[in-house]
Amino acid sequence: MARPITFLSDYGYADEFAGVCRAVIAGIAPEAAVIDLTHGVTRHAIREGATILANALPYAPAGVHLAVVDPGVGSPRRALAVRVAPEDRVLVGPDNGLLWPAIERLGGVVEAVDVALSRFRLEPISATFHGRDVFAPVAARLALGVPLSEAGEEIATDSLTTIEVSEPVIGESRIVAHVVSVDRFGNAVLDLADRHLAQTGLRMGNHVAVETGDRVHDAAFTLTFAEVGPGELILYVDSYRSLALAVNHASAADRLRLAPGDEVVLRPQP
Amino acid sequence: MARPITFLSDYGYADEFAGVCRAVIAGIAPEAAVIDLTHGVTRHAIREGATILANALPYAPAGVHLAVVDPGVGSPRRALAVRVAPEDRVLVGPDNGLLWPAIERLGGVVEAVDVALSRFRLEPISATFHGRDVFAPVAARLALGVPLSEAGEEIATDSLTTIEVSEPVIGESRIVAHVVSVDRFGNAVLDLADRHLAQTGLRMGNHVAVETGDRVHDAAFTLTFAEVGPGELILYVDSYRSLALAVNHASAADRLRLAPGDEVVLRPQP
Amino acid sequence: MARPITFLSDYGYADEFAGVCRAVIAGIAPEAAVIDLTHGVTRHAIREGATILANALPYAPAGVHLAVVDPGVGSPRRALAVRVAPEDRVLVGPDNGLLWPAIERLGGVVEAVDVALSRFRLEPISATFHGRDVFAPVAARLALGVPLSEAGEEIATDSLTTIEVSEPVIGESRIVAHVVSVDRFGNAVLDLADRHLAQTGLRMGNHVAVETGDRVHDAAFTLTFAEVGPGELILYVDSYRSLALAVNHASAADRLRLAPGDEVVLRPQP
Repeated sequence: MARPITFLSDYGYADEFAGVCRAVIAGIAPEAAVIDLTHGVTRHAIREGATILANALPYAPAGVHLAVVDPGVGSPRRALAVRVAPEDRVLVGPDNGLLWPAIERLGGVVEAVDVALSRFRLEPISATFHGRDVFAPVAARLALGVPLSEAGEEIATDSLTTIEVSEPVIGESRIVAHVVSVDRFGNAVLDLADRHLAQTGLRMGNHVAVETGDRVHDAAFTLTFAEVGPGELILYVDSYRSLALAVNHASAADRLRLAPGDEVVLRPQP
Repeated sequence: MARPITFLSDYGYADEFAGVCRAVIAGIAPEAAVIDLTHGVTRHAIREGATILANALPYAPAGVHLAVVDPGVGSPRRALAVRVAPEDRVLVGPDNGLLWPAIERLGGVVEAVDVALSRFRLEPISATFHGRDVFAPVAARLALGVPLSEAGEEIATDSLTTIEVSEPVIGESRIVAHVVSVDRFGNAVLDLADRHLAQTGLRMGNHVAVETGDRVHDAAFTLTFAEVGPGELILYVDSYRSLALAVNHASAADRLRLAPGDEVVLRPQP
Repeated sequence: MARPITFLSDYGYADEFAGVCRAVIAGIAPEAAVIDLTHGVTRHAIREGATILANALPYAPAGVHLAVVDPGVGSPRRALAVRVAPEDRVLVGPDNGLLWPAIERLGGVVEAVDVALSRFRLEPISATFHGRDVFAPVAARLALGVPLSEAGEEIATDSLTTIEVSEPVIGESRIVAHVVSVDRFGNAVLDLADRHLAQTGLRMGNHVAVETGDRVHDAAFTLTFAEVGPGELILYVDSYRSLALAVNHASAADRLRLAPGDEVVLRPQP
């Protein structure tokens, strides 16, 4: 009985890259269910891929979690297989920070190996397509139950490349948050989560002053878009329980000129 | 033994939404085959999604048919699981008309429940992603054989939201049809089907006068595009047995200025 | 136990075409794993689809290999099911050259049938969607182990439509190659493979003069893009072991004005 494999990448859909990785997996572990999370991550966008992966994996069954956004392919960056507690999940991908937020959310590293020279990789190995030649065949073997220690060379669990994640500064009447990502509708996700709300004066149904640069905008803190008219700014809790700014039927990122990393100050209104 | 689950949505491919729904299904019903019909429905286009679903399902094995095009998510619209006769198929999706044409084509409602508050939904439920939190987990349980009555609260089978479907007015020498949809090649599908042909004077191989607004166009009624030169207008039977207008190597919708809902009058020529 | 089915097409992702083919397969051969290679082949681009298929199939487990890029659907072109040696793989698709390079790479034809009138096709058959009505149901039956001879009418193995593949003219100090394809990053793949290198003076680490038309460009022959600065031209071995021209962070096809079929003369530099 093989474990399921989730698969996320920036390979896109125009080319056969993701399909060939799936073909390699099917050849090694035909019983393993492969669940494509998405192959639509912006090309080489490690932080975007990392955020999606960390958000999605708590909804996926425990198994092997393959992720490839790999601008450094061909350079001597390490290739990881990492086991996390407590569900014995295994993450496989390049050591560039892509896996890091998911590893943290899933409970932290228990065991890590470098699979760049794995005995399970395909030969001859290409310089540019390690998804096919390294990550997919290693993930497939791990799905079959092969121990991590046979898939690569052990490395220190505290040696993994991390991604710095911004943190909000939380006060009762003033919250300094940062834009984590902007989706294709122009909604700007903040580094503020609903678990932070109790420490703040933000209350659903009330209004919020949103300071960006030297401008101040008024937003309603609502449950859904439907509660305001088209063109109005809202603060809401998105489906991953992060606070986000949106404009109904338009782009909050355009209106407020927001990009990932930008600072936003929120002041609850009475 | 789990039933297969077909899955259609407007989630697109750039984001992980469809993938996360599949992950949720895989966690609950790992044995269920999931068949993605498409996630490329135009965002919030209920009627387009409904037409595709009704056309596609007769080609799919009987099972659970999950469909999510849900502009009203977060509002108090009902969430449906509906059983149709005679193959015991179950459709799952929002109660906004999306499922209606498929339900009618598959034989009509036998049993319906509102799953908005289903015991099988994920907690905490989000306000904006009921595909993940309601529809996918309910569909997965139903695929495992759980009775509809355990998935939600029974509702009257005649209380479902319907979509009004246009009907052609058929005469021997004059047929009033309407544009149902325009595909990405500019082909305009009409509400006229090949089963209507016998009642009309339309004969393959003959020509047809096509009146749109105050203009009249000449079209050949052909089996395939290959029978006319580039730029010529044809009437043909599409792969779902609907009559459609096309221009070889160009867009009929652009040429004739057609959009969904428009009236087209066809007059068979000798 | 059903064989796996790989599936490549130009159906794209906006429509339900590929999904409906998968639904048909699932109805006939529910146990068969379906591996989508890609549905993003440029519409009607037989040669592009043929190249991707030939490159991808060696990485796929032996089974049934369905491919549909079919501008001639509705015309009297034959529909093929072809068995190749030595792994008993079966390819299914239109007889327009799409399957040819893959057939050659996999060892050549052993047995071929025309499935255009197959007893396994769906009735009524459409004029425009043979992927759904002919190729998918035939592929599904073959995955179940039905002999080729039952799927269609035997045809001569030397009667298949071929695609002419260009060949490089190889010398020690002058190599005449041709552009096979240009990918979406502007990398130009040549008909020169790494197995040809020993017969030439091309050595990794050295430079190469690249003549296109009446212009000469200097390129470094490197293992990866990372070895040169942005904007520099390189010759490299791509992940399918073909030689290719690329410009780091830009398009080689634009810079050198290259299109498929163009001649390129390479002269190794000391």
